[in-house]
Amino acid sequence: MKKEVYWHTSKVQKNDRQKIKQHKSRCLWFTGLSGSGKSTLANAVEKKLCEKKIHTYLLDGDNIRHGLNKDLGFSEQSREENIRRLGEVVRLFVDAGVVVLTAFISPYHKDRDMARSLLEEGEFIEIYVKCDLAICEKRDPKGLYKKAREGDIPNFTGISAPYEEPLNPEITINTGLEVSLEEQVETIVQYLETHYKIEK
Amino acid sequence: MKKEVYWHTSKVQKNDRQKIKQHKSRCLWFTGLSGSGKSTLANAVEKKLCEKKIHTYLLDGDNIRHGLNKDLGFSEQSREENIRRLGEVVRLFVDAGVVVLTAFISPYHKDRDMARSLLEEGEFIEIYVKCDLAICEKRDPKGLYKKAREGDIPNFTGISAPYEEPLNPEITINTGLEVSLEEQVETIVQYLETHYKIEK
Repeated sequence: MKKEVYWHTSKVQKNDRQKIKQHKSRCLWFTGLSGSGKSTLANAVEKKLCEKKIHTYLLDGDNIRHGLNKDLGFSEQSREENIRRLGEVVRLFVDAGVVVLTAFISPYHKDRDMARSLLEEGEFIEIYVKCDLAICEKRDPKGLYKKAREGDIPNFTGISAPYEEPLNPEITINTGLEVSLEEQVETIVQYLETHYKIEK
Repeated sequence: MKKEVYWHTSKVQKNDRQKIKQHKSRCLWFTGLSGSGKSTLANAVEKKLCEKKIHTYLLDGDNIRHGLNKDLGFSEQSREENIRRLGEVVRLFVDAGVVVLTAFISPYHKDRDMARSLLEEGEFIEIYVKCDLAICEKRDPKGLYKKAREGDIPNFTGISAPYEEPLNPEITINTGLEVSLEEQVETIVQYLETHYKIEK
């Protein structure tokens, strides 16, 4: 197959797109257990960036599963394919000049590293949304932990499937502490402005 | 599976993103035979739109196959899955506020209609890049028709697989005529400005 497929170099390049948007493109990759607060935090960060006129887009693990990945289940193989496709979509959005935020459990090192490897140096910002399993399970906003404990959901991260903690995430936010969402958002935005400047 | 997946409403909506970009989002879906000039035309239209400070992104059938769809071949089923995923990615880009251009052969009515159905009324603009098979085969820029005739490529559109001509495309560009690329681009941009106004 490979030899029948040719790479077309688009005449409009990433830096042309970034120039129109007047900022660089990045991926903010939120990872953490179910119930750790990834989506809530990613949504709030997106809102903040949007107020700064930054062109953002949020890809959410749950949302994407209704569309692009609706053919995939939750086996290890399906989770890997889930993250593989998302990594590729992230690559397209970063190439399009957008600051893309993703909120997936993304439990495995190798899958997160794969997504990182598709981008250029400094474009992939791993944000570990850290929260003890006991707290996530107590929150259980969707009742999933209860079902997992009862054996109704197989391969559930933290219960019957592993979560591999990030070893060197760019940012760690501990959502199990008594810190307001606003403060968490501020920590991330401050960190981005200092270390991964988005605005030109 | 369905009942374990929840739809998160992003706090930043499509019209917020469009407001930052100061234009509406659209999909310009180029369809036609291999060698008809889809990629060339889509690239040239993107360049023109980019000059007008419109936030564009080009998804190309061949390029996408190196990433998101690199696991897919060219059987009817794979082609269908190819276009399904692309339709979903287009939906994400339009939701992100971008004018997305796609250049795929996309030979079947049902697949193009599926992609259209994922968008809102007026967002999907089907551009039929019309060119006689004999001319495409004579051009044969990648030598694919020759291989297909020799039986080296199975299921090749126009030779051993059907191409279903669009019945009601928004725009038809006949690239088999003696019309310059610039004029073809101008026809599309004029049509968009008149019928599918992008700029606010």
